Amino acid sequence: MGLSKLLWATIVVMAVCAAARAAERPLVIGSQGSFFVGGEVKTVTPPPGGNALQRGGDITINQMYVQYQIPAGHSRHLPVVMVHGCCLSSKTWETTPDGRMGWNEYFLRKDRPVYLADQVSRARSGFDPSVMAAVKAGTAPPSALPNIISATHQLSWVLFRFGPSYPNTYADEQFPVESAAELYKQMIPDLNAQLPTPNPTWTNMGALARQLKGAVLMGHSESGFFPEQAALLDPTDIRGLITIEAPCPADLTAAQIAALAKIPTLVMFGDHLGDAPTVIVNWQTTFETCNTFVEKVKAAGGDAVMMHLPQMGLKGNSHMLMQDKNNLQVADLILGWIDAHAERQVH
Amino acid sequence: MGLSKLLWATIVVMAVCAAARAAERPLVIGSQGSFFVGGEVKTVTPPPGGNALQRGGDITINQMYVQYQIPAGHSRHLPVVMVHGCCLSSKTWETTPDGRMGWNEYFLRKDRPVYLADQVSRARSGFDPSVMAAVKAGTAPPSALPNIISATHQLSWVLFRFGPSYPNTYADEQFPVESAAELYKQMIPDLNAQLPTPNPTWTNMGALARQLKGAVLMGHSESGFFPEQAALLDPTDIRGLITIEAPCPADLTAAQIAALAKIPTLVMFGDHLGDAPTVIVNWQTTFETCNTFVEKVKAAGGDAVMMHLPQMGLKGNSHMLMQDKNNLQVADLILGWIDAHAERQVH
Repeated sequence: MGLSKLLWATIVVMAVCAAARAAERPLVIGSQGSFFVGGEVKTVTPPPGGNALQRGGDITINQMYVQYQIPAGHSRHLPVVMVHGCCLSSKTWETTPDGRMGWNEYFLRKDRPVYLADQVSRARSGFDPSVMAAVKAGTAPPSALPNIISATHQLSWVLFRFGPSYPNTYADEQFPVESAAELYKQMIPDLNAQLPTPNPTWTNMGALARQLKGAVLMGHSESGFFPEQAALLDPTDIRGLITIEAPCPADLTAAQIAALAKIPTLVMFGDHLGDAPTVIVNWQTTFETCNTFVEKVKAAGGDAVMMHLPQMGLKGNSHMLMQDKNNLQVADLILGWIDAHAERQVH
Repeated sequence: MGLSKLLWATIVVMAVCAAARAAERPLVIGSQGSFFVGGEVKTVTPPPGGNALQRGGDITINQMYVQYQIPAGHSRHLPVVMVHGCCLSSKTWETTPDGRMGWNEYFLRKDRPVYLADQVSRARSGFDPSVMAAVKAGTAPPSALPNIISATHQLSWVLFRFGPSYPNTYADEQFPVESAAELYKQMIPDLNAQLPTPNPTWTNMGALARQLKGAVLMGHSESGFFPEQAALLDPTDIRGLITIEAPCPADLTAAQIAALAKIPTLVMFGDHLGDAPTVIVNWQTTFETCNTFVEKVKAAGGDAVMMHLPQMGLKGNSHMLMQDKNNLQVADLILGWIDAHAERQVH
């Protein structure tokens, strides 16, 4: 990284102090609200035996729910769009499982307009129920149902790197494991398997960046590479790409790498990548796919940074680093990157 | 109501001016965040053929997601818990389809702590996917799938009383029908049919009132009588019941009426109840069930009020009155009722 461990330690101490101060101030909001991006009309026919509310007509699908807060006064900073991972909702970014401030409020207190999007087919964005209605009515086979992803407590524990096996923890674990039960309540069924291609969330994220006339897109885990996918569809007004704890595709073409190299990119991973047993994901291999991606973007002239937290002095971070005990220190690294990289073009 | 039309008209004009002023002030928030109420652990077995993320273990179900904002300083007022209706989420109470302030922010600006709950099995509260996984795996028949309620545009138009038939409007219609497409994006699949009895949302609403050491519970449409259902399970710390545009049960026992009569109750309906064609709901009959309920509560010594908006000088309100063009005037009626009835006991 070119910075000594001592300098990083100093930055971390300053970040802790800044976070403590931020929590004390009243929160003054210029405006807040919610809206949808995208969405299309689908005509449905009434399934035989369906109840009266299921009669035919038009429904809207593939819309993306977005909730926002904008700081009071004129923010000098780019809006940040945060998109959650598998089996989760925008709750990811809010109050942590143990009741501390989430990134949504912290970024706002750092003068950033913040936009939280529920992925299409999840939470307040809703999903297309047509296939389920058809299977119940007997007009489609059970095999037509989507593979619904629903992570168990035991799986999440290991996959999210709280410890090497359930319910044991890593000695320096940063996730507030005593509040894991509150994280489990955040975990909701994931219907992405029934989405069309390209995933409407990608399209909608790009449309949101254009609606905002410039934004930094941030994804995590399942959505970690969604910012790049949005940029590959249309890079207009996408000012920064932040990929947190997600695999990076190995099959991007030179043209795709060249397109992405025009946008500042940050990739971030937590700790214990090599310690975690492979359950669905091999974290060490996943990390290496992103190191390769970062090197390719740099080789193409791009501004790409890999932040591997333990190499920067932050030890013990889990996959859910936005909820970890040092979550505001991690946030400060991202805020600093936005200022120095994504916003360098703006001013 | 004991108030002349002239007095009501004056109150309405004052409310309009107050609403205009409120929108101009910066929003100063004491604290905000989100958490879950309730939830229970369910052990699931891996369905044959399910993917790796569907392996057996424990999942959490029946939790209720709650998002809150508390005014800065010490509020003199009771918290208000808002619960949305069928096929909707807490988006109901936020920015209106045509971009105006929703009741969540307006109540906050009126110095009320506001709690928005997504019903159990909806939106960020998630749902139990076990039956769907079992049907896909062939271990349960398609008939085991829940009846998913998904309202079409055409159905919503008539059922929500935007007009007598789609896409015609009532002459004095208050819903911003030119933005109906944005309402349709709010409409998401309703899985309440697979919930246990009693509905965990009822239990969780009561638990939230106790957690807050006193709250007014407000429901709309499908959830309109949820405040009363919560109170029938346990009335502790439920300080007011607000039922908006929902049927009232005719089969309550004298003991149940007596129990509800201990809590101030407000029932509210919009306009065109007798004009609307019967599509699933007969609005005039529904209104009458609530008039009967209010009279029974009053006969039992309770403080129950029916606000039928056109009788109070507010014409043309739809079923979605919290999104209507005069939504802040309607809100002022509720705020006034809380001050005069629910909080009369407190101070």
